[in-house]
Amino acid sequence: MLAVAVAEARAGLAEGGIPIGAALFTADGELLGRGHNRRVQDDDASTHAETAAFRAAGRRAGYRDTVMVTTLSPCWYCSGLVRQFGIPRVVIGEARTFHGGHDWLAEHGVEITLLDDPGCAAMMAGFVEARPELWFEDIGRD
Amino acid sequence: MLAVAVAEARAGLAEGGIPIGAALFTADGELLGRGHNRRVQDDDASTHAETAAFRAAGRRAGYRDTVMVTTLSPCWYCSGLVRQFGIPRVVIGEARTFHGGHDWLAEHGVEITLLDDPGCAAMMAGFVEARPELWFEDIGRD
Repeated sequence: MLAVAVAEARAGLAEGGIPIGAALFTADGELLGRGHNRRVQDDDASTHAETAAFRAAGRRAGYRDTVMVTTLSPCWYCSGLVRQFGIPRVVIGEARTFHGGHDWLAEHGVEITLLDDPGCAAMMAGFVEARPELWFEDIGRD
Repeated sequence: MLAVAVAEARAGLAEGGIPIGAALFTADGELLGRGHNRRVQDDDASTHAETAAFRAAGRRAGYRDTVMVTTLSPCWYCSGLVRQFGIPRVVIGEARTFHGGHDWLAEHGVEITLLDDPGCAAMMAGFVEARPELWFEDIGRD
C-alpha cells in the first residue's frame, strides 16, 4: 500500500511541489482515494497529502473499515482528520524528517504502523534541504 | 467578527448544506479568508468551515497574528489545523450542539473565546434535528 503513497509523493515532487503522498484503502486493500500535497501546485495551504486522499475517497458514512497510508508522519491537522473520522489504522512511511501526531493517535486507540522506509526518508530529507522555506511554510513554522 | 462566520453558515444552509461558517482575521480585524462547510455542495468531505476559511486566506508564512472565528466548536480535524499552524486565538459561536477540541487547544496555549451565541446554537440545533444523517456523516459518527 505504501507504493501508492510514494507514487503520489513523487508526482508531487515532479510538479515542483512538496513530496508527501497518501492513500486511503479499505482494510482488505481496496484503494478508495489517493492524493498529494498541493500547496505549491494550487497555492492551496489546506491540501495536505492525507486530506487530498480523504477527499478523493468521496463522502462515506463511516471509516471503521479504512486504513490511511502516508509517506510521512501526519501533522496535527492530518492527525486530527484521522481522529475525527475514526480511521482506525495509519501506515506511515517514515517519521525521521518530521514527527507529527502519530503518538497521540496511538494513545487514542489508532493502530500505527511505522515502516521507517529509507526511500521515503531520503526523498523528504532531500526536499527539506533543497527547499526549507516551503517545508516550514507547510507545517506553519516561522 | 462572528457576523462574517454566521453569514457563511447561513449561505451554506441556503445552499442545502451544513450550516457551519468560519473566517480567518488578523489580530486587528482584517478579514483574510472566509468559508463554509461544503460537504453537500461539492460532495467534499474534506472542506469544513475552518479549512475553507484557512484555504481562502491563501498561503502565508505564519499565522501568529491571526484569529480563527467559527460558528461551532472546532472538530478534531479543524482543531488540529489550528494547532499545526499556530493560530493563537479561536473565537467560537457555540459549543452546545457539538463540543469539539477547543479544550485541547486551550491546554496547548490557544486563547479560546466561547461566545455561547443563542443564534448560532439555534441554527445548528435546527439543522441537526432536520438532517441528523448529514450531521453525523460530517463528524464521522456512524
